[in-house]
Amino acid sequence: MDMLWSGWGDPAKAAPLPEEVVGLLRDLLGVRPADAPATALAAVAPRPSRLTGEARTALEAAVGEEYVRGDDETRVRHTRGKSTPDLLRIRAGEVGDAPDAVVLPADHDEVLAVLAACTEHRVAVVPFGGGTSVVGGLAPRGSQAHVAFVALDLRRMNRLVALDEVSRTATLQPGLRGPEVEALLAERGYTLGHFPQSFEWATIGGFAAARSSGQASAGFGRFDDMVTALQVATPRGTLDLGRAPRSAAGPDLRQLVLGSEGAFGVITSVTVRIHPTADTKVYEGWRFPSFAQGQAALRTLAQDGPMPTVLRLSDETETMIGLAKPDAIGSGLSSDAGCLAIVGYEGTADEVAHRKARVHTALSAARGEPLGEDPGTGWAHGRYNAPYLRDALLDAGAFAETLETAAFWSDIPALYEAVRTALTRSLTDAGTPPLVMCHVSHVYPAGASLYFTVVSAQGKDPVAHWAPAKRAANDAILAAGGTISHHHGVGTDHRDWYAREIGPLGVEVLHAVKDRLDPAGILNPGILLPPLPAV
Amino acid sequence: MDMLWSGWGDPAKAAPLPEEVVGLLRDLLGVRPADAPATALAAVAPRPSRLTGEARTALEAAVGEEYVRGDDETRVRHTRGKSTPDLLRIRAGEVGDAPDAVVLPADHDEVLAVLAACTEHRVAVVPFGGGTSVVGGLAPRGSQAHVAFVALDLRRMNRLVALDEVSRTATLQPGLRGPEVEALLAERGYTLGHFPQSFEWATIGGFAAARSSGQASAGFGRFDDMVTALQVATPRGTLDLGRAPRSAAGPDLRQLVLGSEGAFGVITSVTVRIHPTADTKVYEGWRFPSFAQGQAALRTLAQDGPMPTVLRLSDETETMIGLAKPDAIGSGLSSDAGCLAIVGYEGTADEVAHRKARVHTALSAARGEPLGEDPGTGWAHGRYNAPYLRDALLDAGAFAETLETAAFWSDIPALYEAVRTALTRSLTDAGTPPLVMCHVSHVYPAGASLYFTVVSAQGKDPVAHWAPAKRAANDAILAAGGTISHHHGVGTDHRDWYAREIGPLGVEVLHAVKDRLDPAGILNPGILLPPLPAV
Repeated sequence: MDMLWSGWGDPAKAAPLPEEVVGLLRDLLGVRPADAPATALAAVAPRPSRLTGEARTALEAAVGEEYVRGDDETRVRHTRGKSTPDLLRIRAGEVGDAPDAVVLPADHDEVLAVLAACTEHRVAVVPFGGGTSVVGGLAPRGSQAHVAFVALDLRRMNRLVALDEVSRTATLQPGLRGPEVEALLAERGYTLGHFPQSFEWATIGGFAAARSSGQASAGFGRFDDMVTALQVATPRGTLDLGRAPRSAAGPDLRQLVLGSEGAFGVITSVTVRIHPTADTKVYEGWRFPSFAQGQAALRTLAQDGPMPTVLRLSDETETMIGLAKPDAIGSGLSSDAGCLAIVGYEGTADEVAHRKARVHTALSAARGEPLGEDPGTGWAHGRYNAPYLRDALLDAGAFAETLETAAFWSDIPALYEAVRTALTRSLTDAGTPPLVMCHVSHVYPAGASLYFTVVSAQGKDPVAHWAPAKRAANDAILAAGGTISHHHGVGTDHRDWYAREIGPLGVEVLHAVKDRLDPAGILNPGILLPPLPAV
Repeated sequence: MDMLWSGWGDPAKAAPLPEEVVGLLRDLLGVRPADAPATALAAVAPRPSRLTGEARTALEAAVGEEYVRGDDETRVRHTRGKSTPDLLRIRAGEVGDAPDAVVLPADHDEVLAVLAACTEHRVAVVPFGGGTSVVGGLAPRGSQAHVAFVALDLRRMNRLVALDEVSRTATLQPGLRGPEVEALLAERGYTLGHFPQSFEWATIGGFAAARSSGQASAGFGRFDDMVTALQVATPRGTLDLGRAPRSAAGPDLRQLVLGSEGAFGVITSVTVRIHPTADTKVYEGWRFPSFAQGQAALRTLAQDGPMPTVLRLSDETETMIGLAKPDAIGSGLSSDAGCLAIVGYEGTADEVAHRKARVHTALSAARGEPLGEDPGTGWAHGRYNAPYLRDALLDAGAFAETLETAAFWSDIPALYEAVRTALTRSLTDAGTPPLVMCHVSHVYPAGASLYFTVVSAQGKDPVAHWAPAKRAANDAILAAGGTISHHHGVGTDHRDWYAREIGPLGVEVLHAVKDRLDPAGILNPGILLPPLPAV
């Protein structure tokens, strides 16, 4: 099934906002229903394809004629990603960033052939998995070196290649979506344990290319932690990386490919750690008197253990709004002081009982109040539904977007305040004062990730309103010592802040790698890497 | 205190082999006392320094006159590392690889100044921490681009720069040795938890540059796991890496510096995770019926938990010889069937008791037989003494060397047999049949590290005997799917196998990075990276 072209997910799952939420948005933020009707898919026409006949012939030779698609609908469905500005623009029928064609390779060798054809014919290539980028990772920036660009849709590369029960690893093709992976592994009694919010649509290749992190990262780790080996097709040939879980043989080149967002090559195979399927899953709610006290409790677990499988903590505002349960948004609205944490355990019944008891002791000692399983079950039920809620908010005339970062624990309090202030000031100055919510989404012994959600009225031009707010938030993140992204990636949206984060010499290092692997610069031009300053 | 110039460690700790071991070596391996007396330090004369007057003046301007040393003893003490061939050659007075001078910078800016001076004057630079490389990492290979080479001894950079108790991180200068770090952290109630066999002499910078892994890696992780941030001085300027524990902002550039062995830059600061000092430490012995069954038990702990802090398993031969207790080598000699594991726990008393009970359940279920604390205490007592034992073996006319690898669990059995066979055949063909011992030194969910120890008679030319045996072992490791090093690094000794491991395109990627950061090629020429094939 294809994703909704102008929004998120399965069109059948779309649902309007409850009336009380519409009222709340109106009263709190001045949200008014949008008056422009949504554009219909049939009415959206991309510009004529710039792909030359020679280039098309070469691509058809690489993958077969039927797998080079140039129809309008296919091109529109591969236009940009799923950030709120992306959705607002495509809802308005703007598809200036549509690829000139969509190419669907069957295997690693066909990817190599596509890259050779594109190098020869000066065609840029954007690897396309689930199309769920929220950082502009699918919209290459103009480069005079290319005459056209194609989306390289990896959906045909969707096999479980190998499962090693002794080493507990699985080798997966990049086009597999989250649920497909879990189904293939479940047949053999295993799970991957990677459940980001984009789980239902995003792919293995995308998880690797953008260093995804899932809701069960406390127990299963980040996706980059899970990867033991990678195969990459580059314009210069193949990289096969990972002969052991860990090695002292030089730099870890796997870590150079993870997070490279298609700029160095196309990930054609990912070997990941797997785990026996959990027979017991328990999710609970806990209340803390304040966000700071809740953070201290999470830090205790991250530093001294034991770690639950799922661990997140909403700030006071997010708790009040009830955003932890997108299906029941607003219904849990209360003025109770405090912050809600979701704490989940997955494993064997014995192991879960055991770990849960120790976590209870630690959280109780840290001033946590157990709320039982209802809040946890509610969270689990709606865990992938926030993007649907965003569509409903946009339909209702609201603006909603998220951003995230990570930092060391000692930087977290100031970072939290700085980002909230930056977002609130910028959007208030634009005439659309926002509600800014936050949760701790991932924890480590040395630090944590903060995930912000912003809701406001759309105003006259929400894309224009958002741009300076996003810039202000990014500036605040860097100034407070955080990283520009903990799990969304760089894309085009974070590129300039990323350059500041790693410094000009870091940018040069990455360009050196790119120049060596992709001398014609066909791979994702303008994504991840800013142009080098002219010498 | 300086390390023994011609061997390991503190000269006062040297001890001859017990008589019964001498007898055993004679009877088992035909070891005869060497007849050549050891060369005296005063009799060892390096070649005249090739450093030009201009270069010396520039280096003196960078660090101060007194910190550019050209005396013979200092140069000899910075000649090569501590592999067995290194020791055999220096014992014979061969110091053809001596640096032309030794330079001791005080801080990051002085390192930058040294790199600028060396770039200008075509002088190669070999960063020097504890001087404990066992892979030829301190002996640059000839390059016509350089007229001389200097050892950059980092011992003056030995400060604890910062300790963040909230984030539980410490920022350390690279010249700090293991015990110095532990002493500085212990004053504040913390430990780093990194205890490789070279602990007493090796430095923070070396741990990072060579991706060290310690004896407590099961509990504390590898050194590269511990690193949260790095500062690097390169000929092109400074890299500051690590704004959060983990990030999705592009490739992890920290992982490009870790393992780079000084070829990209000089690590001038390392921020690491720290832990509260353990108040309880318990080490136990366990016996398993066979190496395979012991491995299965370790794999169960690594995959399903819980993990002890220390976990190693000797094969039947190593168990019989008693190598797990270097202080009591031979004394525990027995023909008992089976394999000895050392299992250690460090933490609070409660946490240790708790974890120990669960490990006992798991190991007992995996056919382990508990031997109590005596074998564990014996191991802990001698844990840093194997290199002293090697000196005593060399003194007694034996040859002794180690090598190590890592692989996925499913490759481990064939890898073990292939390496044993390669070593045994090659040395037997050379007329010095060896004793080959092995232990699992580090475990991961997906695989493990194997650490081999080889003892034989020296024969007429032990360096010449060893070279083909080492080559055969390296070939066997690659053929069986292992990595050429799990924790010793690449240096010059593993360089050609490393190139095979990452492939020609991987080598090109690393050269691209090096060319960008070190365009004059002054940093550790010939170490880590083989020359690119001529085009």
